[in-house]
Order: sequence, then C-alpha cells, then structure tokens
Amino acid sequence: MRRILVLHGPNLQALGTREPEVYGAATLDQIDAGLRQLGSQLGCEVESLQSNHEGVLIDAIYLSLPALAGRSFDGIVLNPGGLTHTSVALRDAVAACAVPVVEVHLSNPQARESFRRESLTAGKAVGVVQGFGADSYSLALRALAGVLDRAAIA
Amino acid sequence: MRRILVLHGPNLQALGTREPEVYGAATLDQIDAGLRQLGSQLGCEVESLQSNHEGVLIDAIYLSLPALAGRSFDGIVLNPGGLTHTSVALRDAVAACAVPVVEVHLSNPQARESFRRESLTAGKAVGVVQGFGADSYSLALRALAGVLDRAAIA
Amino acid sequence: MRRILVLHGPNLQALGTREPEVYGAATLDQIDAGLRQLGSQLGCEVESLQSNHEGVLIDAIYLSLPALAGRSFDGIVLNPGGLTHTSVALRDAVAACAVPVVEVHLSNPQARESFRRESLTAGKAVGVVQGFGADSYSLALRALAGVLDRAAIA
Amino acid sequence: MRRILVLHGPNLQALGTREPEVYGAATLDQIDAGLRQLGSQLGCEVESLQSNHEGVLIDAIYLSLPALAGRSFDGIVLNPGGLTHTSVALRDAVAACAVPVVEVHLSNPQARESFRRESLTAGKAVGVVQGFGADSYSLALRALAGVLDRAAIA
Amino acid sequence: MRRILVLHGPNLQALGTREPEVYGAATLDQIDAGLRQLGSQLGCEVESLQSNHEGVLIDAIYLSLPALAGRSFDGIVLNPGGLTHTSVALRDAVAACAVPVVEVHLSNPQARESFRRESLTAGKAVGVVQGFGADSYSLALRALAGVLDRAAIA
Amino acid sequence: MRRILVLHGPNLQALGTREPEVYGAATLDQIDAGLRQLGSQLGCEVESLQSNHEGVLIDAIYLSLPALAGRSFDGIVLNPGGLTHTSVALRDAVAACAVPVVEVHLSNPQARESFRRESLTAGKAVGVVQGFGADSYSLALRALAGVLDRAAIA
Amino acid sequence: MRRILVLHGPNLQALGTREPEVYGAATLDQIDAGLRQLGSQLGCEVESLQSNHEGVLIDAIYLSLPALAGRSFDGIVLNPGGLTHTSVALRDAVAACAVPVVEVHLSNPQARESFRRESLTAGKAVGVVQGFGADSYSLALRALAGVLDRAAIA
Amino acid sequence: MRRILVLHGPNLQALGTREPEVYGAATLDQIDAGLRQLGSQLGCEVESLQSNHEGVLIDAIYLSLPALAGRSFDGIVLNPGGLTHTSVALRDAVAACAVPVVEVHLSNPQARESFRRESLTAGKAVGVVQGFGADSYSLALRALAGVLDRAAIA
Amino acid sequence: MRRILVLHGPNLQALGTREPEVYGAATLDQIDAGLRQLGSQLGCEVESLQSNHEGVLIDAIYLSLPALAGRSFDGIVLNPGGLTHTSVALRDAVAACAVPVVEVHLSNPQARESFRRESLTAGKAVGVVQGFGADSYSLALRALAGVLDRAAIA
Amino acid sequence: MRRILVLHGPNLQALGTREPEVYGAATLDQIDAGLRQLGSQLGCEVESLQSNHEGVLIDAIYLSLPALAGRSFDGIVLNPGGLTHTSVALRDAVAACAVPVVEVHLSNPQARESFRRESLTAGKAVGVVQGFGADSYSLALRALAGVLDRAAIA
Amino acid sequence: MRRILVLHGPNLQALGTREPEVYGAATLDQIDAGLRQLGSQLGCEVESLQSNHEGVLIDAIYLSLPALAGRSFDGIVLNPGGLTHTSVALRDAVAACAVPVVEVHLSNPQARESFRRESLTAGKAVGVVQGFGADSYSLALRALAGVLDRAAIA
Amino acid sequence: MRRILVLHGPNLQALGTREPEVYGAATLDQIDAGLRQLGSQLGCEVESLQSNHEGVLIDAIYLSLPALAGRSFDGIVLNPGGLTHTSVALRDAVAACAVPVVEVHLSNPQARESFRRESLTAGKAVGVVQGFGADSYSLALRALAGVLDRAAIA
Repeated sequence: MRRILVLHGPNLQALGTREPEVYGAATLDQIDAGLRQLGSQLGCEVESLQSNHEGVLIDAIYLSLPALAGRSFDGIVLNPGGLTHTSVALRDAVAACAVPVVEVHLSNPQARESFRRESLTAGKAVGVVQGFGADSYSLALRALAGVLDRAAIA
Repeated sequence: MRRILVLHGPNLQALGTREPEVYGAATLDQIDAGLRQLGSQLGCEVESLQSNHEGVLIDAIYLSLPALAGRSFDGIVLNPGGLTHTSVALRDAVAACAVPVVEVHLSNPQARESFRRESLTAGKAVGVVQGFGADSYSLALRALAGVLDRAAIA
Repeated sequence: MRRILVLHGPNLQALGTREPEVYGAATLDQIDAGLRQLGSQLGCEVESLQSNHEGVLIDAIYLSLPALAGRSFDGIVLNPGGLTHTSVALRDAVAACAVPVVEVHLSNPQARESFRRESLTAGKAVGVVQGFGADSYSLALRALAGVLDRAAIA
Repeated sequence: MRRILVLHGPNLQALGTREPEVYGAATLDQIDAGLRQLGSQLGCEVESLQSNHEGVLIDAIYLSLPALAGRSFDGIVLNPGGLTHTSVALRDAVAACAVPVVEVHLSNPQARESFRRESLTAGKAVGVVQGFGADSYSLALRALAGVLDRAAIA
Repeated sequence: MRRILVLHGPNLQALGTREPEVYGAATLDQIDAGLRQLGSQLGCEVESLQSNHEGVLIDAIYLSLPALAGRSFDGIVLNPGGLTHTSVALRDAVAACAVPVVEVHLSNPQARESFRRESLTAGKAVGVVQGFGADSYSLALRALAGVLDRAAIA
Repeated sequence: MRRILVLHGPNLQALGTREPEVYGAATLDQIDAGLRQLGSQLGCEVESLQSNHEGVLIDAIYLSLPALAGRSFDGIVLNPGGLTHTSVALRDAVAACAVPVVEVHLSNPQARESFRRESLTAGKAVGVVQGFGADSYSLALRALAGVLDRAAIA
Repeated sequence: MRRILVLHGPNLQALGTREPEVYGAATLDQIDAGLRQLGSQLGCEVESLQSNHEGVLIDAIYLSLPALAGRSFDGIVLNPGGLTHTSVALRDAVAACAVPVVEVHLSNPQARESFRRESLTAGKAVGVVQGFGADSYSLALRALAGVLDRAAIA
Repeated sequence: MRRILVLHGPNLQALGTREPEVYGAATLDQIDAGLRQLGSQLGCEVESLQSNHEGVLIDAIYLSLPALAGRSFDGIVLNPGGLTHTSVALRDAVAACAVPVVEVHLSNPQARESFRRESLTAGKAVGVVQGFGADSYSLALRALAGVLDRAAIA
Repeated sequence: MRRILVLHGPNLQALGTREPEVYGAATLDQIDAGLRQLGSQLGCEVESLQSNHEGVLIDAIYLSLPALAGRSFDGIVLNPGGLTHTSVALRDAVAACAVPVVEVHLSNPQARESFRRESLTAGKAVGVVQGFGADSYSLALRALAGVLDRAAIA
Repeated sequence: MRRILVLHGPNLQALGTREPEVYGAATLDQIDAGLRQLGSQLGCEVESLQSNHEGVLIDAIYLSLPALAGRSFDGIVLNPGGLTHTSVALRDAVAACAVPVVEVHLSNPQARESFRRESLTAGKAVGVVQGFGADSYSLALRALAGVLDRAAIA
Repeated sequence: MRRILVLHGPNLQALGTREPEVYGAATLDQIDAGLRQLGSQLGCEVESLQSNHEGVLIDAIYLSLPALAGRSFDGIVLNPGGLTHTSVALRDAVAACAVPVVEVHLSNPQARESFRRESLTAGKAVGVVQGFGADSYSLALRALAGVLDRAAIA
Repeated sequence: MRRILVLHGPNLQALGTREPEVYGAATLDQIDAGLRQLGSQLGCEVESLQSNHEGVLIDAIYLSLPALAGRSFDGIVLNPGGLTHTSVALRDAVAACAVPVVEVHLSNPQARESFRRESLTAGKAVGVVQGFGADSYSLALRALAGVLDRAAIA
C-alpha cells in the first residue's frame, strides 16, 4: 500500500471561513477526510499536515519533522499557498525530493492578481491541478496515483 | 446523460510520434477512446475534435462547425496547445462560452520555455490540469464532471 | 457609388448573446443592416463578412476569398476582435492594403485587461473608433466616407 | 436642447499652423464653427474652450472656471493633447465627471512614438475617436449624441 | 504657536460628491474645519488651499502665491492627488522646501490601479498617511506636529 | 473596551540598536509601553508580539498561537518589516482577517531601495502610516481606533 | 533526388505589389519558378505552397493537407511572415518536424519595428537567411541542401 | 539684432537657496543679468521668464502670454526643470515651435535619480547643455547663437 | 581567539544526497568538521547551525536563539540557500548585524536559473564566495578571518 | 573583379577546437580557403582578417589598418561574434560603411542564451545568414555577390 | 597655461564623410584645429587623439599611452561615440580620473534610436554638451575652462 | 608545478590610487607579488598581465599574445573589471577556455550600481570571489588550486 503526504501551506487552516467565494466552503478537516477515503479506494494511505511556516513545509518534505520521523512516503500532494509565487527555498526542496510532488490550488491563480501568474514550485513538480475547489485535491491525489502506477510499470 | 466536447489544438494530431519525451507515447485516438470509456463511467457522452486552426477551435466552441451543427454540449475540455500563450481570440471565445471549460496540458508548461509561463485562456477557464501526460485529459474530464455536478446541485 | 467592405473578426458572430454588458445587445445582422442603410445615405454600397479565422480575414483584405472574387472595394471597416492585440500578419495585411482601413471596437479596450492596451493593427489603420457599441460601426463608416471624400478632392 | 462642452488641451490653439502634415490644415476656430453647426443639426448647443493648462481643463470639467460658472453641460468632448499620456489628475477628473466624456485625437497615436501608445484618460472615457483630423471632432460629437440618446431611452 | 499649511491637489475640491465609495462623504470644507479645530488643540494655526494646478501648488510651497505672501509656515500637509504619481516638478518643490512635508491620501493607492503604486513625492516627504478617509488628514497633522516637536527638542 | 493586537515583524526586536539613523532610538519595549498608554486613552487594550518568523505572524493573525489562544481582537496594527515586499502568504492572511489591519513602517520605504517601493500587504490593509519613527505606531493606533469608531456607527 | 517543400506564410501571395520598397518586385510565381530551377541544379525537386492561414501551414508541415497527401519531403524552407513573431503553435510544429527547416525572410526584420526583433520559429529552425529579397529563398534552398548533404555523410 | 527668449521651468525661481550643493549658489536674477550681458556681446537681445506652470511655459513658446504679446523671438533657451521627464505637452510645444530650442540643465541628470535619465523634451530640441551650473545657460546661449548663425548662412 | 558562526540556510541539511551533480558529495557534517579544523589553524572557534526557517536564521544573527544565548561571535559565514534571492528580512538582519558577514554558495548561481542571478543578501554582506563546492566554505572562512585581521589593525 | 573583405570577430580564431558541438569542426583557415575558392567562381577576390579587438574590426571597416592600407573593397562579410549583441560602436561603423555588409553567424543565436536574441549590427547590415556552420560563410558570400550584382544593374 | 586632452572615440575619424546629415560636414582635423585656436584664446593648450579602441581611450585617460607619456592634463573633453551606451570600463576610467571630464556629442542622442537614450559615461562626467555638431566641441571646451576656473577659485 | 595566469582587466593598473575607499590601497604590483608568494606555497607558478583592452584579454586567454607565446597554463584567475557586465566576447572566450577560470572582484558589485548586478562572465567561470579587496585575489588563487586538485584526483 502506498503512502502519500498531503502538505497544506499558509492560510489553508482557515478554509471554509476565509473568503469562501474564492476558496469554497469545505474545511480542511473535511478535505483531509475525503482524501483519506479516496486514498483507500486507490490503495493509498494518506497523511495530512498544515503549516503557515515555510520552514516546516520544507522540513516535512525531508521528513525531518518530529511528527513525521521514521515515516516514508511514496509521493506528495503540495498546496504551497502564497509561497507558490515567492519561495525559491520551497522550490529547491521540491527539486531535491526523491518522490514525485503534485502541486494543487483551490482557486485558479491565472484568474487572479498578476503576481499569482507565475509558480516557482510548479517548475519542479510533476504537474499541477488548479481551480476546482476541494476537488483539486482529489484530482491531484488521483494524478499522483497515476504517476506512481506508471513509474511502477517502467 | 451529459455531453462533453473535447477540443485538441494545434500539433496534437501528432501525439505519440512528436517529441514523446515531452508529450508521452499515447496517440490522440487512444486518448479519445480512453475518454469515451471514462465518460461512460461518469455518465458523460464524449465527442472529440482536433484542429491546427485557431478559427476552427473558436467555431467549435460556438458549435458553428458543420460537424457539430445541431449539437449541444454541457462542458468543454480544451487543450489549446501553443495557442494557450498567444490567442486573445480563443480567450474571448472561452469567456463567451455558456458552458464550463477546463484547460488541459500534457506537459507542465512551468517547466519549459519562459514564453509558456503565462496562459491567456486559463484566466477564463474554470481550472487547469497539466503535466500528467494522457492522464491530464482523464483528470480534466473528472474535474469537469465535478463542476457540472456541483452546478446541478446549486 | 463607393463600395465598402466591413470585416468582423473572431467571436463577433455571437454579438447580442455574448457578454451583452460588455458588447451590447445588437446582433451582427442588425449592425450590418444598419450599416447598409447608413451607407446608402452616404453614397456607399456596404458588404459585410465575419470570420473567426485570421487567414480568412487576411484573404478578404486581398479580395482573394471566393465570395469576394472579382469585386473591388474603396475602403475597409475592420473590427479585428482579439486579433487586434496579437496578429502581426493582420497588421501586415492592413499595411499592404491599397485602400484605407478604419479600425473599430464595440467596447473601449483601454478600460479592460492590460493586454488589450496595445493594438498592432491600429498603427497601420487610418484611425480608430472605439467604445460606442454598435454606434462605433456607423461612426467608422462615416469616418471612412470622410477619408475617401478628402482623398477624392486632393 | 442638449449642451455639449468641447475641451481642447495643450498646443491645439496652434492647429492649422503646427505640423500640418500630422494634424491637418484646419484651424481651431474652423473646427469649433463646424462643431456648432453640426451640433445644431443634432440638437446640441456646443461651447468650446482651449487651454494649455492641465489645471484649467480640470477646472472646466467641474465647471468651476469663471467663464463657465452657472452653466451645465450634458456631455464633454475632450482632446487632452499631450496630457493624454501623462496626467493622472485629468484621468481622475474624467472619472469624477457626472456626464459622459468622449476622447478625441486628430492624429492616430498608435502610429506615432511609443510613449503615445497608452492613454490614461481613455480608460475613464466612454470611448475614443482618433486619426481622422478635424473629422475626429465631428465624429466624436455624433458619438456623444448617440450616447446621450441611448441614456435618455434607458 | 506653529503655523501649518494644508495643500489639497487636483480634484479634491469635489470631495463628498466625487466617487464617495472611494473618497468618503466629507467635504473639503468639513475637513479643513476639522483640521483647524485639531490644530488649535495641538498648538497649530492651520491654513488650507486647494488647486487643480500643479504650478499653483508649487508656488504655494514657495509661499509665492499672492494669497500667501508674507506668511511663513512651520510645516506642510500635502495631498498631491493624481500628481503624486506623475510630477517630478512637485517632488523637486518638496525636496527644496525648508520645512517638513507630510504626504496624505484619502484612499489607499496600493489597493487601486497599478500606476498608483509608486509615489514620486513621497520619496522627499517625511512620511505618508493613506487610506483612512478624512482621518488621514488629522493623522497627518498629528504626525507633522510630532515631527516639529522632535525637531524642536533636537 | 476594544482589544488591539500589535504585530512587529522581522528585525524589529533590535529597535534602538539597529541602524538608529534609519529606524530611530526608541526600543520596542518603549514603543509597546507607549501604545498601551495611548490605548487606554482611546479605550483600547493593546497587546504586542514580535517575531522574525513569517509563519508566527500568520498564526497570530488567526489567533492560533498558544500565547493568543482564546483571545479575540477588534483590529491589528501590523509592521511586516522586510516581509512587506515579499510575502504573498502574509498578504493572504491580511486579506482573510476578519478585523481591520493597519500597516505601519518606522521609516519611509519610498525613500529607500527600489525593492521597497511596493508593498504586497498594503493592498489588503485598510491604510498605511509610514516614516514617522515610533510615532508611526501611535498614529496607526489612532487610525485603527478611528476605523473601528466609524464601523461601530455604520 | 531530394524533395523540398517551400512554405510561404501570410501576405506573401502579394509579393511584387505589396510595399515593393520593403519586399522587392519579384512575384511569388517568379520566386517559385527560380527555386524549381535552382533545385534541379542542386538535385532537389521543389514544391511550393502559400497560405494566409496558420493552421494550413501547420497542416502542411505534417503533410496532412489534401494537396500534400501521400508525399514526403526531405526538408522545408519556411517563410512564416508575420507569424514569425507570434505563433507558438507554428514553433511547435517546426520543433515536431522530422526533417530540417530553414527559415527565410525577404526583408531584414532587425531593421524594422521592435516587435519584429524576436523570432519564435527561428529557435527551432536549423538556421535563418534574411534581408536579401528573393535571393533569400535561393540562399535558403542552398543552405538546406548543404544541411542534407552533411546529414547524408554523417 | 537677434531676440532670444530664456524660459525657466518649475522651482528655478528658488535658485541660490534651494539645494545649492546640487544647483549652485547663483540666483536666477544673476543668471538672467549674465545672459543679457553675454547676449549683447553675441548680438542677441535676451528676455527671461520663469514659471512653475507647465501651461505658462507652453503659452510662452507660442508667445500667447500677455507679457510676450506682439513680440517675436529667433530662438529659445529652455530649462524645463522637472517637466523634462514628464511633459509630453511641453515636448509637443517644442516640436511645434518655429524657432530652434536649446535645452539646458544646471545639474547633470545622468548622475541623479533613475527617473531623470530620459528627457522627453530633448528629443525635439536642437541640443542639450547640462551639468555646468549657471555656466550651462551661457553655453546654451552661445550654442543657440551658433545654430542661428549656421541657419543664416545656409 | 575569534569566534565564528556558520549559518546554513534551507535545504542544506540534505547536502551529499540532494542533487550531488549540482552541490557536491560532501555532507554538512563533513563540511562543518572541516571548518572547525581550518578554524583552529586560523585562530578561530567555529560553531555551525542549519535551519530551513528564515526566522531561525534571523534569530541566530541576533544571537536570540536558545542554543546561542549568551554567546557572542566576531563574524558570520552565511549560506542563505534559496532565501538569497527572496528574503528582504534576511537582508535587513545582515544589514543590522554588528559583525561582518560573508556570503557563500556551493554552486555558481550565475550559471543557473535567471531568478538566481540577483542576491538580496549580498548587497549587505562584506563579500561573496561561490561556485567551489565545499571549498566555498573554507575560502569564506579564510576571507572572514582576513576581514577581521584588517579590522583589528585599523 | 570584385574585392570582398571577410571579417571574423572575437574567438573565431579558435574555430575547430572551441566548442565544436556549437560551432563545427572546420578551422578558420579551412573556411577562408573555401571562401577564396568560391570567390573565384563568383568573380570575387576574397581577403580575410580575424581579430579579438573591437577597435581592429572598426579600423578594418574603414580600411585604416596598416595591413589593409591602400586597398579598397566592394563589400564586407562580417561575423561580429560576441560583439553582435553589445557593440554600438561596431554598429556605427557598419552604418558608416560605404559598401554593403552581410552579417554571418556559424550557430543560430535564436536557439541560444536570451542575450543573443538581439543583434545591434544586423540592423545596419543588408542581411543575415546564421545557423549553417561553415556554410553560413559561403552562403553569405553568395548573398553579397547577389547584392552587388543587383546594385550593378540598378 | 592649462592643458586639455580631447579624446575622440570610435568612428569619429570618419567625420565629414560618414552620414553628414547626422554628424555634419566638418572633418576631425578641422575640429581639432578649431579647438586649438579656441584653446589659445581661453588660455588652454589643446591636444587631440582619436581611437576606435576602447582600451586606447582608457589608456589615454590614465596618460599611459606612449604618445602621452610624461604629459599631464588639467581636464578632458571626451566624445565616447558608440561606447557611451555600452562601456562600463570607460565609465570606470572617467570615475577614476583625477581631472574633470566633459562629455560631448555631435548629434543629439535623445532624438535617435532608443539604445542611445542612456549614457553610462555621463553619470561620471561633470556635464554634457550634445546636438550642436562641431560647435558641441567648442562649447565643451568653454565648459571645461569654466569648470577649471571655478575650481581654481574655490 | 602548476602554472596560473592572472588577468587584470580595465582600470586595474590604477589600483592603490583610484578610489581607494572602493578598491583598497594595495597596488597591482603588490597584489601580483603576493600572489607569486602564495603561489609558491600552493605549488603554483603565477604570471600576471593587465590590460585595458578587451581584445588583449581574449588573446591572453588563448595564449596568442606574443608575451605569452609558447606558454601553457593550468588555470586562470580573471578580474574582468567593467567588462564583467558588458562583454559577451569575453564570456565566449571563458567558455572556450580549456582550463578552469575563477572570477574575482576587489569590491562587492552587488552593493554598487544596478548595472553591476549581473555578470556575463561569471556564468562560464567555475566560481567567483568578490568583496575582499586584495584578499579576493589570494582567495581566488586558493580556490583555483582546489579546483585543480579535485580535477587531478578525479
């Protein structure tokens, strides 16, 4: 059974209450529960973690957080939030990561402010799913499962 | 039963032979067959059309092509190919379109040339799926089905 | 009696239904009928053509479309739609055109997205009328008649 | 009967003598006389004012000039001259103006120096007419009459 | 007792009527009256002047306007309006000014059009207060009083 | 009685010792004491927190720090320090914040390096006070009190 | 015997009449005849095709036009006209093309408008010949023959 | 005997007191007196005018100021001050001016802020003298005399 | 004996395993051991600290981390990793730092992505050593020792 | 018989050894020999000169080098090497040159680093041949011969 | 008696023959003779040197050319030609130069190509004279004499 | 024993006298002597050469200067001076160079004018040492020795 780490970046703990017209009404707990359920269908064990700290997200990618110590994961679903557009350090962590990373956004950044047009992290991710609200996460999990399937065959 | 139009833009007829290290080994026919199959699972009838002509793609969005006359669709999956980055006319058609449009890319444009960083069409699409090869299409079809489901409920 | 060609670019076939808050409620047929009527007052025979294809618009400027073969025109009213901002080829056709071209827009591009601020075609047109909805066309026809009058005198 | 204010910006007092190959041979008095005549046909009383001072033009838009005190106007035709490209203050006045403003240019700025490509004022005007020499003004007056007609109906 | 000059730039005479959702409902007279009152609490005599003319504002900074002749001021509160973003001449006057200048804006320019992001005058002012409607002025007056206090001590 | 949270961003713990010619001689403790005193005059209870960590500042805005748990605030005074110009995540937190945020800077960023000209956070704050040293904070507290007063009336 | 496809892009059908001071007096038929003659000297069979349609040019590169069906070519001489600077789709087709492509221009784009300075297609072509009027084509044909010779040896 | 108009733009009335380390210690009266004296040596009658108003400077160039009515000049020495970098209207007046204009600056703008690097007016002036303090004016007067001498011969 | 603090920024804990073709095969422990040894030759006591958190690095520069409390250092060797290009806050900390800081990079950023061309921190560091793998650190330590020697003499 | 000067710019003396995968395996002597042979077929005497010095190349264009004194040439083939993108002085020399200049590059600069996209010299050359290795030179010589032929006829 | 070095940069040896409509009809020898004559009036011994080599010009500024060995100069008149816009090395030499440097241009760069708008050298020169043909040099010599006079007094 | 070539670019002959607050007080002879001494400790024979000529530096890299004929070197220490930021030709020479090149700067370009932020040559050098005055050279020599050591082992 595969193990997937879902990383939620800054401000995502507020989902469901923060600007619901932009980000949707689902809470992060509901999203995580849905991902665990979908994961079990896809043969994946899903573990989630949210942080407003760039450094915690980078630590998590290296599994050097106490909460993750001793674990190993086959892939990562990453919503970098506002760090998407500003963090070379997070990009470097994604580049260094030995397992595939899929980037996900609830909203469609291309339809928002101009400084959200470019993603530093996406250039090192396998791919991106954006704009489908909470569905973005479940599609990203499916995408990651597909990437792992193809890698398993090859 | 919902009806979905899948539009493939310039150069995509060559899939499977053109730069397979970038775009994957699946042919367009294989992709379209897979989408029809997935569509039947999701309760969607899927019809596909490829063109290297910007004007044909715009005509298709308005269903004013002879091949599409008299049809109606509930949503569109659009891979604009190279037009993604250059066609304001296609963007205007997506904006004018009465049904939701999901943008899809086989490769991850953020990891390629700098002129592929910005998408004109994405700003008017519901969302984007990119970077997962042929899987990008099936994920986009799922995403579109989800959008239509939510709209049906609301 | 002068002969005027009115060219409508991409997406304009949808006038009256597409984003009426931006483009107004008149249909293209209504606009064309109005132009023929105004033309007869100004001593001009008006013929209209719409296409979503950049190539068809360029062909039309050279009168090399079957529908226009054997005709000749004294001037052109051109609404390039989204091609305004992206088509060097259309600009080259306007530059090569032996008769005066007047550019027209229903909406006021200066009040919209930043990529609509610059017009490639306008630099080779005689002048521009923009922002007055369907009236933009009738003003452009008057403008063109004036240009032809002055040329006839000189 | 409607009342229209025609505002001519910097350097326009020199029309007919200043660079006639760019701006045409008509003098400002001739243009103003023509506009009064056309106005009477369109049911509009036309009053004109020229100034090289940004502040005077802004005062005029607020009708706070002594020469305009106690008057009221239904619309404004504005040729901002070189201020088109540099005056945020004039743009703010156009935005604050309770009546519609139509921007007009004798020449076609898109065919001139690059710093004339963008108009700050146009984004707050109803629309723009440019490139037809003195005819630009009469077309703008017609455009403004049309805007007022439509507003009267609505 | 200190003497303070409050300078209101272009379009500010229209406060209370012009775009109240952006600039608030207070009139300039109300603001000036409030500043005189606050000034008397802070030990400052406050005099106000509005102009739509860049040149008048510069003249005022040099006290070379007839209305200001023979006066002297200990500091200036300046709302440059749209000149904020375009006037190097006003910036030069602020730089040349022997007394401290505090810049003030009713609205928050950072939340508006991109051309309002940069202030030419602010670089030569002591500081800036922006975004608090009419309160911006009273805060600026307090700020200026504080600057003068510190200077008096030093 | 209102409750106000004052957030000091990176490097501000060093106030009074770090580059006093730029930032002034007051220490953070002195500033915080002054704010508590002014707050009691304005009917506000003031609580302060400094951190060099972007994530801690974001956590604080959501009141999800242990030190702030169970508290609620009516408004925030935020000095984002160097994060002003680089943190989209902090901007997103300000945007998500249910209470008004006033941005404050000790120095005048417009008079410093070019990369300090633009503020990401200011676009989501109510307003900004900058350039008055320690007085910037007290002015910001007054500004925030005014914003809350007006909101209470409306 | 080698087979070469010569593709002429938008506006080139007007050669000899369109702006001869820029593009020269030779017609496209004369150029094509000259190329066939030169081709026979170089051991190449030359076939030509002109279109104002981006899509037709892309179709031609894939030999999927009816007129070209069943043919195969050893190399392509391509004059993309105004599409040179705007078509990512054409660039993608050149990149996907299994045979070498030589880009050709009649005029010297570096000596013209700034938007002609960069070529999207050239980055995927083998090389470029520009500025020699009709001779550009014959030089390009020689260049292509040389490329094929070297490839045959290697 | 030739007649020369010397136009001093915004802030120059303050010469000798304003930032003497940048602009030198000479007053405008001293400079004007020196120019009249040098003018008499060069066979030129010199008249001077200073204004902080862009409109007054433009009026002066057209000799439409009351103070200048009925005069005529053979050339103009113009120090546009801060308007150098921002006034398209002043540039247009220089372009329209029938007599040669020489631009002059006391300081060397190339050694100052980046927004002083480009001069809008210089592109329409005959030439520029900058950086020599009050000497810039006398050199500019000599330069203008030379231009008039050469024109007289030709 | 001098005391030197070596600060390693984000991702550097993974040295030796992360992209060794870019960053080399040495681990961080090996590098730190080498620096301690070299330090003892140069009369320096060397202490090292790695963190993926911007805030921790800033805290360390102020010696306000628990692990560093009560220590003092004569200089700092800083490898900011990806924060080099994005952190104004770290730049501010380097600027505020009372002791000299030497910036170090394992790879040569000038030979990598364009967003690595500019360093925010370098402008406040004494100097930079980059491109020599683990040797960059030992050279930076020598450089810092030299800076301290010269300061001791002066 | 015509006389042609072939000028090779910086680094070209190293051809055949320097980065052969970019520039090809032919040495400069081989290229020059080939050009002399082709020249004799085309009725041209060919003389070659290489220098790493911008000044020597400019001197050569004016025939003011000792080695070229007393010679005259009918045209120049110029490979400016890296100076292509940086030398305004060389551009000025090409502009001043009384005989036609053809620019040549071994590689295709459009497919290399972004700073090689623009050529300063090409804007003043007749035309450009690039991307065909050593063949670029022989094609350029043919191109120059054609230019001289046409000039001889006209 | 003062000694002045006049340095002419690339392409200036061709004066009188090269593009006389841009640079005038005077030869460099005539200009140098005129400068020696004017110099003797102003109490200056003038020596001139032209080179197309950046390095020679820099050597000259340091008086390290054999031709200049053992000389000393009180000031330099420098026409950097095309190096004006591209040479940081020449700028550094001007900055290092112990005597004042006056920059001179025959034409007015502001009225030419956009890449001539900025001068690297001017930022380190005392001032600039441009646009007056050969008179630019004599005005520059007078300017330099004035600078030396003022320095002698101070 | 290894042989190292130290190349000093433009203006460096003036070290010790030119702007010592930027570049330090050591002369070039002192630096070269120090490098020879350090070289002997590191088992390297060091030879130095300074030139203000870009071409001479390029010739030196190819060992085609008379002074260097017949020599061979194992590595180069290069201070390109002002050419760092402007010379593509020098970058090409570094790229072509068969032995490793280490770039060195006395000052820290990141802390100076904005046009010194980017280095063209650094992208092709092994690494860079900057900001440590004369120590930069000795550190660069050590760095080069380390590079050669590692290469000898590999």
